[in-house]
Amino acid sequence: MKYFSNIEKVSFEGKGTKNRFAFRHYNPNEVIMGKTMEEQLRFAVAYWHTMNGTGSDPFGDGTYIRNWNGRTHMETAKNKVNAFFELLEILNVKYFTFHDIDIAPQGESLKEFMDNIDEITDLIKEKMDKTGIKLLWNTQNLFTHPRFINGAATSNNADVFAYAAAQVKKTIEVSKKLNGENIVFWGGREGYESLLNTDLNLELDNMARLLKMAVDYAKKIGHKVQFLIEPKPKEPMTHQYDHDAATTIAFLYKYNLINDFKLNLEGNHATLAGHTFEHELRTARSYGLLGSIDANHAETILGWDTDEFPTNIYDTTLAMYEILENNGLQKGGINFDAKVRRTSTSMEDLVLAHIAGMDTYARGLKSAAKMKEEKFFDSIIQERYASYKEGIGASIVSDNENLETLTDYAMKNGEIENKSNHLEYIKSMLNDYLV
Amino acid sequence: MKYFSNIEKVSFEGKGTKNRFAFRHYNPNEVIMGKTMEEQLRFAVAYWHTMNGTGSDPFGDGTYIRNWNGRTHMETAKNKVNAFFELLEILNVKYFTFHDIDIAPQGESLKEFMDNIDEITDLIKEKMDKTGIKLLWNTQNLFTHPRFINGAATSNNADVFAYAAAQVKKTIEVSKKLNGENIVFWGGREGYESLLNTDLNLELDNMARLLKMAVDYAKKIGHKVQFLIEPKPKEPMTHQYDHDAATTIAFLYKYNLINDFKLNLEGNHATLAGHTFEHELRTARSYGLLGSIDANHAETILGWDTDEFPTNIYDTTLAMYEILENNGLQKGGINFDAKVRRTSTSMEDLVLAHIAGMDTYARGLKSAAKMKEEKFFDSIIQERYASYKEGIGASIVSDNENLETLTDYAMKNGEIENKSNHLEYIKSMLNDYLV
Amino acid sequence: MKYFSNIEKVSFEGKGTKNRFAFRHYNPNEVIMGKTMEEQLRFAVAYWHTMNGTGSDPFGDGTYIRNWNGRTHMETAKNKVNAFFELLEILNVKYFTFHDIDIAPQGESLKEFMDNIDEITDLIKEKMDKTGIKLLWNTQNLFTHPRFINGAATSNNADVFAYAAAQVKKTIEVSKKLNGENIVFWGGREGYESLLNTDLNLELDNMARLLKMAVDYAKKIGHKVQFLIEPKPKEPMTHQYDHDAATTIAFLYKYNLINDFKLNLEGNHATLAGHTFEHELRTARSYGLLGSIDANHAETILGWDTDEFPTNIYDTTLAMYEILENNGLQKGGINFDAKVRRTSTSMEDLVLAHIAGMDTYARGLKSAAKMKEEKFFDSIIQERYASYKEGIGASIVSDNENLETLTDYAMKNGEIENKSNHLEYIKSMLNDYLV
Amino acid sequence: MKYFSNIEKVSFEGKGTKNRFAFRHYNPNEVIMGKTMEEQLRFAVAYWHTMNGTGSDPFGDGTYIRNWNGRTHMETAKNKVNAFFELLEILNVKYFTFHDIDIAPQGESLKEFMDNIDEITDLIKEKMDKTGIKLLWNTQNLFTHPRFINGAATSNNADVFAYAAAQVKKTIEVSKKLNGENIVFWGGREGYESLLNTDLNLELDNMARLLKMAVDYAKKIGHKVQFLIEPKPKEPMTHQYDHDAATTIAFLYKYNLINDFKLNLEGNHATLAGHTFEHELRTARSYGLLGSIDANHAETILGWDTDEFPTNIYDTTLAMYEILENNGLQKGGINFDAKVRRTSTSMEDLVLAHIAGMDTYARGLKSAAKMKEEKFFDSIIQERYASYKEGIGASIVSDNENLETLTDYAMKNGEIENKSNHLEYIKSMLNDYLV
Repeated sequence: MKYFSNIEKVSFEGKGTKNRFAFRHYNPNEVIMGKTMEEQLRFAVAYWHTMNGTGSDPFGDGTYIRNWNGRTHMETAKNKVNAFFELLEILNVKYFTFHDIDIAPQGESLKEFMDNIDEITDLIKEKMDKTGIKLLWNTQNLFTHPRFINGAATSNNADVFAYAAAQVKKTIEVSKKLNGENIVFWGGREGYESLLNTDLNLELDNMARLLKMAVDYAKKIGHKVQFLIEPKPKEPMTHQYDHDAATTIAFLYKYNLINDFKLNLEGNHATLAGHTFEHELRTARSYGLLGSIDANHAETILGWDTDEFPTNIYDTTLAMYEILENNGLQKGGINFDAKVRRTSTSMEDLVLAHIAGMDTYARGLKSAAKMKEEKFFDSIIQERYASYKEGIGASIVSDNENLETLTDYAMKNGEIENKSNHLEYIKSMLNDYLV
Repeated sequence: MKYFSNIEKVSFEGKGTKNRFAFRHYNPNEVIMGKTMEEQLRFAVAYWHTMNGTGSDPFGDGTYIRNWNGRTHMETAKNKVNAFFELLEILNVKYFTFHDIDIAPQGESLKEFMDNIDEITDLIKEKMDKTGIKLLWNTQNLFTHPRFINGAATSNNADVFAYAAAQVKKTIEVSKKLNGENIVFWGGREGYESLLNTDLNLELDNMARLLKMAVDYAKKIGHKVQFLIEPKPKEPMTHQYDHDAATTIAFLYKYNLINDFKLNLEGNHATLAGHTFEHELRTARSYGLLGSIDANHAETILGWDTDEFPTNIYDTTLAMYEILENNGLQKGGINFDAKVRRTSTSMEDLVLAHIAGMDTYARGLKSAAKMKEEKFFDSIIQERYASYKEGIGASIVSDNENLETLTDYAMKNGEIENKSNHLEYIKSMLNDYLV
Repeated sequence: MKYFSNIEKVSFEGKGTKNRFAFRHYNPNEVIMGKTMEEQLRFAVAYWHTMNGTGSDPFGDGTYIRNWNGRTHMETAKNKVNAFFELLEILNVKYFTFHDIDIAPQGESLKEFMDNIDEITDLIKEKMDKTGIKLLWNTQNLFTHPRFINGAATSNNADVFAYAAAQVKKTIEVSKKLNGENIVFWGGREGYESLLNTDLNLELDNMARLLKMAVDYAKKIGHKVQFLIEPKPKEPMTHQYDHDAATTIAFLYKYNLINDFKLNLEGNHATLAGHTFEHELRTARSYGLLGSIDANHAETILGWDTDEFPTNIYDTTLAMYEILENNGLQKGGINFDAKVRRTSTSMEDLVLAHIAGMDTYARGLKSAAKMKEEKFFDSIIQERYASYKEGIGASIVSDNENLETLTDYAMKNGEIENKSNHLEYIKSMLNDYLV
Repeated sequence: MKYFSNIEKVSFEGKGTKNRFAFRHYNPNEVIMGKTMEEQLRFAVAYWHTMNGTGSDPFGDGTYIRNWNGRTHMETAKNKVNAFFELLEILNVKYFTFHDIDIAPQGESLKEFMDNIDEITDLIKEKMDKTGIKLLWNTQNLFTHPRFINGAATSNNADVFAYAAAQVKKTIEVSKKLNGENIVFWGGREGYESLLNTDLNLELDNMARLLKMAVDYAKKIGHKVQFLIEPKPKEPMTHQYDHDAATTIAFLYKYNLINDFKLNLEGNHATLAGHTFEHELRTARSYGLLGSIDANHAETILGWDTDEFPTNIYDTTLAMYEILENNGLQKGGINFDAKVRRTSTSMEDLVLAHIAGMDTYARGLKSAAKMKEEKFFDSIIQERYASYKEGIGASIVSDNENLETLTDYAMKNGEIENKSNHLEYIKSMLNDYLV
């Protein structure tokens, strides 16, 4: 341990501690609803923001102070692996996530890139074996390089499709090598800049083609991994094809991919699509497709992807409620796709920000668990939908009615009475559940 | 003709006319791309805004001055039918649309409501026979009455479901009686106010149930009508289940309704969902589900459903381009789901506003036709996607490649070159097509 | 007590109580920072939403069940006064607010309206004397009636200006009669629908004219009252002239009204303007113009004025922090300009919703007080701006420097170092202050 | 001429030309309302986007292909000057704008930066003398370098204030040297990231201090230049202090700077603030503060600063109408603060995009001029506000009335009648004015 020189392993000291580098709420071994918090939350650290972020923004240069730069790209890449695993151990985090270009220099050719990936993943594997830390998911970056200017699978240039395919193949192989639990597709530039010059059908067909090839190849090499798609509505393209959960699901149905993919949902992306995070989670859940989450937060008065660390306990409580209702995320996890603010310039901010995120999700878990144990929502729902448990309601949900029988019923029925929902009271009570 | 006392039939006088009650651009008999403008545009007037609007808003009382009020609800309802057909004839419009409660008083009981509908639709039928005007679509209002406070099919109250079913049955029967070409479902309150008290799965299941019953009943009575769903993202509920085209399509797939429904898309609803109108049309088109449109316009700096008459020629040009690419709307049409501004208080504004909308769509049609004839977009697309016409691109779209063959190709391929899109030039040229 | 038949006076029972009609957090007599909670919070109930709301919305009819309707408008008006004071006493609320048309029927003429106001305010005065309840502020409704279709002071119709002036005069007289502490101007329709037909300068000049007349008249009749303007950005007009705090302040400066008015700020209006509530409060505070607040909450994913009861403890904590920093609201108060949801249909919801709002503000007060006592923000600020306490910084803020001296300094100065802001840590710590 | 090797001087060829490098609408010598189009429009090219843009975005690397890179930073800087003036001559543009860091490398020290500026501005001056091209405005970049992480004048670090002051001093000196007509302040990072750690009053006081120093120094060295502030609401900070025109005006009043500054208004910034561009122009005009404009366009469905070239003829028509009503921009001009799309990668796109912008503004000028000549808006306004020309209205605007006299008038007055605004008709007619 040397990159985060003054910071020891973060341990639980509880609320009120003066130690900034201690968890005040997250206690990995504390049991909540029959599992440890570590098992319930399955936290992961994201390589890109954490190791490759610079603090630059559209109006300013990088600001972060980092100490892992070496003399060559490969030396830097290796330093980063060391620093990254050091951070994971400091944080008690057992999972991580990365894009191909996060970990390995792209070099001068595709061949060199692949070789670099092999060399770095050897080192990563070694670290994983030593520490027991696991790969939650990996993915390929098909948006940063200028070749992807018009997308990857949805580029108008077939050579770009081929290049993307090569990266996807490598991602699957790396996943197998590192025993990854999921593979994510985030269509970074899969979308359109303008409808005026876009062949929408060709682009969507091609997007499906690449996904099918990925599914086929994983099967061929015998790698049983959960594929995930991560919806996002806009940015960088004017319209991203995986706009939100529902849009992505329509696409998966159309191309017969509905049984091959689940969703990786992100808080900030939900906000950009005009939804709450819990809405996206509930939607995925209603289609049986809730796979994993990218835990971050949007400043709602801004219109772009701020990727803040999650520190809002309403959001994490409602997200964790959906996750508990889903019987957890199974193979998925809670990945901090979040970057420290441009003004959080020091190395220690990487630790402080993850503590903030983990503590806030820990509070969310505790609050949600308490609500489930006391059947807070269950009893509200139970009472509210009681009319579907008997009589005409039960008959409707048993599919025993039709327009004619229901018309007969309605004709005979008297004035309909609806009860108050008392939503203000519910929201006020919800506050008392926030831990 | 007596309600619009000073206004004669609106005819085409061309640009520059000083006659406010003349078309300056819409000429029903002018042939554009092999059909008359009347055939291409299939305009419809909406009963609700036109005959029932009052000019009230959340902060103010009604302002419109109308002259059709009678001594009883039924007398008023009949006056409205007369005034409505008078207006349709003044405007040269051949189609109309309505909700059940628009045309007939709801009375004291469901029975009375049904009887009123029968009586009024007799009168409407008579008018239709005399004038040759047709029913583009009808629908049922399942959102205004307090009984629908929590939705209709998605209400927590089974009695409400039954009541809604009775209205749907009647809608189908009225459609048959009046030889309607489409039936629309707009889920006015089908959505949730808060996830905190919502059983999402039950509600969505029930929404599908009602739609299935409708399809079954139409088949049973031998009425071959096109069913349409109209997406809208929010308002009046926090989340409306038919959020946008893609969300609605996911739902239709899930419940095996994908072959039974097309979409009725609205400009203002697209804006509220964070899309352009042409995006929604293109999306529907890519799934083969473009059915009909509700022509209106949103003030983009406002966040609610303003339902303005369409007067933006960019919007109508791009909308008409999508419609021409769709080979027209077939059974669908262009329905003015638009209300005169609260300050357009006079009877003559009903005429002026429709002229504005019809002229703006006429311009859109002409501009779009010109672009199609000169292959403006076609040639851009043709050139831009040329790489998929031969070589590796052709092989990809023929499904002859996989990750391995493409990796081989990419490994051998040199540096990829992408051409400029020249989007500024395209947008500037587009301006020259606006008529 | 008879309108809220089953509900007794709400008293403090503390967190965990099963009694829905008890405060869990608000204890009027508890002392926080040297004052009772009642003194710190100065809660007021708003007449319009509470007594006149119906639960209607742009897509649906009224839903609320109320028991105060009489046989005549005046009888109903009197019943409402009785019910309103009953509610105030149940809630332990010591202040109230109203528009002229809330309390008295407008009748057939301005004269009749004035007479009705006199009669009802006699009754109100009697109630006030008996209960000790006070008038926080009153105002005039210059937006609901069709005559105000184009605004009041900013109408294009001079007769409307005159009519508005008469209402304003009466408002001031009523304020004097009832010993009101503030008078609010909310320019309900003072704004434009479209710039295309608007004489902006004339309208703004006239808006200022009416305000000046009000100030002059209050002086003339010797009524020392605090005048307030309530900013709102849009709705019902496309642009409302009092867009936000800063816009209103620019207007007040231009027309030399800056010393005559303070601001009444509302949470939902802040959201609609793209600001946080605390931003608006801080802005007003920085100009010395924080007068009073309208406590409500916006659903951020919706684009209109939802006027929800405040139940978000982040919002109330940060709002109360600004208020404590302002040494309280002085003559102002916390007015619940909030309406029960359309689905909160029962009389008891009026009580439950106010309890929710009062409890949430009580929590906000406690959290903010704790942060002030522990100097949470103070110490962050102190440390962060330390460079302005000495050396060149102290010289700058003492206005002893100019571009030349500073250039000399900068030329000699070495590389500048900025410290990390650790914002994630601050936000995480803030969570621990939420009571 | 060598950087834009194949492109000759762009001249007017009119609508329908097949020459992509010709104006179809902008004819510099055509006389519109008594002045040439060149005089009316005073176009300027912005150095930053045009010469320094790379096509990078938050998710991708630079894409533009440029041919002016030299072996040293200074060589590149000089090449750029040559290329820039070549472009200006190709485009027939007579004005330009720049930030200090756009033109000169910052070097290793402030001293070196200043020396570089001196050297490059010598070259620029030479070019200006030779070509007759003028400096519309220059400014200082106080936001890109990490030292400005927390703002410049509003930084918490006094050393940063001093550094900024040195840059401002140089800007004024360069303006004098190059005979600049305006100096712009865009507070790139003058704002807050979070209120939680912000001393708002100190920051605003300091912002005013720097502006005063600038005004004083320009006076001291005898440089009569128009100072401008450019409002922007958000991005890069959460809240930028110069949020919009009105917010900036409130600030100028508070600090007694109202007579020293006018506003430089930008289309995209208006959109981000929730306004139309014409609203911002009208607001500035109503305060007598319309100085200059930054001509660009926002994609309204996106939430960030897209800085597109203006190609919407509604926007440019309404903007030019405001400018004509202002008797032109006087010392100001129309500066293309716009960047070619990331996919417009070629050198020729720089020419094509400016042609698109210039043509669109030329159309706007022609349409607006036609409306002024035919008194389209004038006659609408005239008729609409007629009541203020005589009787009680004339008396009100002559300040001869008060609440008492107006109440008397209103009491006697009968029912008020408001005429319809016919807004749909106005909007439809407006379309016929679009050239």
